[in-house]
Amino acid sequence: ADIVVLPGDGIGPEVTAAAVAVLREIARVHGHRFDLHEHAIGGTAIDACGEPLPATTLAACRAADAVLLGAVGGPKWSDPNAKVRPEQGLLTLRKGLGLYANLRPVQPHAATLGAAPIKPHLLAGVDLVVVRELTGGIYFGDKTRDGDGASDLCAYSVAEIERVVRRACTLARSRRRHVTSVDKANVLETSRLWRDVATRVAREEFPDVVLEHQLVDSMAMHLLAKPRAFDVVVTENMFGDILTDEASMLAGSMGLLPSASLGEGRAGLYEPIHGSAPDIAGRGIANPVGAILSAALLLRHSLGLEEEAVRVERAASDALDAGVFTADLSPYRAATTAEMTAAVID
Amino acid sequence: ADIVVLPGDGIGPEVTAAAVAVLREIARVHGHRFDLHEHAIGGTAIDACGEPLPATTLAACRAADAVLLGAVGGPKWSDPNAKVRPEQGLLTLRKGLGLYANLRPVQPHAATLGAAPIKPHLLAGVDLVVVRELTGGIYFGDKTRDGDGASDLCAYSVAEIERVVRRACTLARSRRRHVTSVDKANVLETSRLWRDVATRVAREEFPDVVLEHQLVDSMAMHLLAKPRAFDVVVTENMFGDILTDEASMLAGSMGLLPSASLGEGRAGLYEPIHGSAPDIAGRGIANPVGAILSAALLLRHSLGLEEEAVRVERAASDALDAGVFTADLSPYRAATTAEMTAAVID
Ligand SMILES: CC(C)[C@H](C(=O)O)[C@@H](O)C(=O)O
Ligand SMILES: CC(C)[C@H](C(=O)O)[C@@H](O)C(=O)O
Repeated sequence: ADIVVLPGDGIGPEVTAAAVAVLREIARVHGHRFDLHEHAIGGTAIDACGEPLPATTLAACRAADAVLLGAVGGPKWSDPNAKVRPEQGLLTLRKGLGLYANLRPVQPHAATLGAAPIKPHLLAGVDLVVVRELTGGIYFGDKTRDGDGASDLCAYSVAEIERVVRRACTLARSRRRHVTSVDKANVLETSRLWRDVATRVAREEFPDVVLEHQLVDSMAMHLLAKPRAFDVVVTENMFGDILTDEASMLAGSMGLLPSASLGEGRAGLYEPIHGSAPDIAGRGIANPVGAILSAALLLRHSLGLEEEAVRVERAASDALDAGVFTADLSPYRAATTAEMTAAVID
Repeated sequence: ADIVVLPGDGIGPEVTAAAVAVLREIARVHGHRFDLHEHAIGGTAIDACGEPLPATTLAACRAADAVLLGAVGGPKWSDPNAKVRPEQGLLTLRKGLGLYANLRPVQPHAATLGAAPIKPHLLAGVDLVVVRELTGGIYFGDKTRDGDGASDLCAYSVAEIERVVRRACTLARSRRRHVTSVDKANVLETSRLWRDVATRVAREEFPDVVLEHQLVDSMAMHLLAKPRAFDVVVTENMFGDILTDEASMLAGSMGLLPSASLGEGRAGLYEPIHGSAPDIAGRGIANPVGAILSAALLLRHSLGLEEEAVRVERAASDALDAGVFTADLSPYRAATTAEMTAAVID
């Protein structure tokens, strides 16, 4: 299998190195051959080539079976008014590969509940996946700016909503058959359309799945007050961005959480949900678990290697059970990235 | 003073009745004269007059010193594709009165920490105010809908951002002189403008106030992980809607939280941040504290009665300290709305 690795910026190279080590170990033990190719993206690519997504990188990703990404961005390139910004690389890549469904599972681990700001009794049994629409909405609408003001257009087509709702409902069939669709239908026209389309798709194509609707403001509350109530949550790009960062607090640390971005085919983009964390970059202390679990999702969704995926997930879980914690999880027993990775590989 | 009361829908009439009782008691004890006039808004107004904000209601609000509102909306009028919706009444009122700054203070009360999903040690000492821009952004931009799709325009002018940032910085001067401006400047053009304007206003006009910037997704996380780090938080309409509902979980229940919506003059609109809660409407069990504390904000901001405002806030706090809890705070010792109100008035 042909896998492109995009280390990116900040702690990106450190955590992708950990995930690559795990992939190599899986290949060795299970007798697979993974061809791994590194390419530039983000600020690193701006420095090297003057653009955040060089054509060679995009072409390599298009040709690959899967892409593993670290993180992009950092203070060096952070002037929001700069002509080129690292984040553009990531947005263009998502759009260019047609990866419209971003899956972000949140399953708090017993060993790390202590690190979560939420009371532990609310977290036992939480197991949800947010399916975030990733190539539409206000992220990609027309933008204007002049001396008096600025604007961003949020637009959704029926087809864009249909395909991501279908993906969420299909996922729900392999889980508890419950989908919560999040919108702001009492204010936004795109949300009223979203609600109509979600309702129709669920009724016509997924009569066996229960669909409920939540307004985004209520959802921001219920996610904390009753996180066990959710199975699959589907929402548009901007709401998904906010709600998944909020939901990461259920798990104790963003550093633990993986994501998979999928389109029509099997190829996909896998990245931890954390950012480039410039404050700790280069110190070898970043939590590699989010990246390692992203590699597990890669094995599952793009390579069809379910057994290997489960093996990686168990290994990460065992390492946490054994009390191997990076600094984000516990300031007292702070394992390094390398120690945490070694514990998973063992 | 001339005060318009808009009970609205669901539990709105129950909680505004409680707040009105408290205002009458303050008038009696302090020898003020409050002229209170009730008008229709929301679903109730749709039923009575066919529109969610009758012209008589808007005119009365325009002429008043302050407006006290309950809540709008409910399943009876909840078809998001209906021609008239209760929420339009509220949005048109905010816009019509030019109330561009919505202040939502969050100060968890020691007695109610048990009701919050957040670990108590994170909440001690939390004291923040979100200043939400209320008459711009995607709420009020052009909307389109046709067979293929829909759109909502998010637009901000320099002047709209300047005035709300000024309001936030001025408020910070009476507090800890720290403002956190929340945007999504790595993706949105309106957010890049927001960041530029906020930076300039703070530097030129408020050199004594510390301004920091947060991306909205990170903010959704930090609000839970380190809520003590925030003093005044200023953000645009949609982000403010989501973040304030999330922040309400710091206080244990939405039912506790008040808000003040202010424009250029002294007149303002005061409402609890909770909704119409149709599931418990008419049962006399709604938490009136958010509405009562909204009346306190009315005394402070629109009538200039600081002493009376503090008195109401102390009374609410004392009632909670005495263990008088409505059902949202404790299922075991569920006081009724009337009992809670009587406890505050005592
Ligand atoms: C880096 C940024 C553009 C990105 C987003 O907003 O999508 C990030 O926050 C994420 O959630 O993956
Ligand atoms: C009822 C609705 C239109 C309103 C809003 O979104 O502003 C409410 O959620 C609020 O926060 O006051």
